[in-house]
Amino acid sequence: MKHLKIQRSPVELDLKDFSLKGDPVISQLRVLKDIASIFLEQEAVKLIPPETIVYHVQSWLPVDEGTPGGLSFGTSTILPGKVGNEYFMTKGHFHAKSDRAEFYWGVQGKGMLMLMDRDRNTWAEKVYPGSLHYIGGEIAHRLANTGSENLIVGACWPSDAGHDYEQIATNGFSARLVEVDGKPILLKEKIRK
Amino acid sequence: MKHLKIQRSPVELDLKDFSLKGDPVISQLRVLKDIASIFLEQEAVKLIPPETIVYHVQSWLPVDEGTPGGLSFGTSTILPGKVGNEYFMTKGHFHAKSDRAEFYWGVQGKGMLMLMDRDRNTWAEKVYPGSLHYIGGEIAHRLANTGSENLIVGACWPSDAGHDYEQIATNGFSARLVEVDGKPILLKEKIRK
Repeated sequence: MKHLKIQRSPVELDLKDFSLKGDPVISQLRVLKDIASIFLEQEAVKLIPPETIVYHVQSWLPVDEGTPGGLSFGTSTILPGKVGNEYFMTKGHFHAKSDRAEFYWGVQGKGMLMLMDRDRNTWAEKVYPGSLHYIGGEIAHRLANTGSENLIVGACWPSDAGHDYEQIATNGFSARLVEVDGKPILLKEKIRK
Repeated sequence: MKHLKIQRSPVELDLKDFSLKGDPVISQLRVLKDIASIFLEQEAVKLIPPETIVYHVQSWLPVDEGTPGGLSFGTSTILPGKVGNEYFMTKGHFHAKSDRAEFYWGVQGKGMLMLMDRDRNTWAEKVYPGSLHYIGGEIAHRLANTGSENLIVGACWPSDAGHDYEQIATNGFSARLVEVDGKPILLKEKIRK
């Protein structure tokens, strides 16, 4: 019985890097071979060891995924790197319950939050320490690291948002974030070589 | 048309104190006279200037309150102080859409997150820099500053959560956070003097 008790939450953050600590925390790792198909230049993929870490995610899901009204909290770390001229990035997804929003905030490093609406307009917001990003419903989102250190981003999203990776896996975004003259730009998607 | 544009989000955080900056940010201030009735010792209230700031909140509501699937983001600052032996605290509320959850995380200072379920069991979680708190649906919540500096807490909640302040204003929590021998403890609510 917890009436009148003073206790601690089971999860803590390190405010410097937003890493999560505690029994309920779960971790996911994405290495290049898991997500090779998201990159344009498949010849360039072959030049990088397949076990190279592209990103990892820590999450606290206090209630089961799908629970209405609940929230989840997480931290994503995207490593620096490129496949050809395209920056290391996450798979990207719409939410399965497609009106569900999400907050991201930049903690360390430098990158871009790529956003695409249902009409396949693609744009990006600069991610940097302290940038705060609202991702509305019906907007696909993906993070790319455009710097030379880890890009770390905190996140909060509804427990019943879910992930629809399929649409992005099949049709991709309508633009790619590539380095041209040392700078990131969005280039309209080309036919895959 | 934002297709292929790279832009900035309209709101930024200062990661040191989670203060928000940007045109859409709104602020609320609660001074003692606004919330005097939440404290037990009404004689002690009279000893403190009525315009004394008890807490202030900055929020970004990217979509209108009530929008299903949306999220809001904010930072609460509770000042150090006591009314008699009772710590400065927020009004406290259930969510109007009562199954809606909320995340809080401690940024600076020292305090308690007071929690009360629908059966009027009251408990608390220690708030400190890096503490991360999941407040499930149907749980009333209130922050109290038990330290000597500002208590700063970040928050993320569903746009359609709403605030039900009425129940707490009428019935209060079933326990009060008071200082006894220099330490915070939860004491069963007494009959109001």
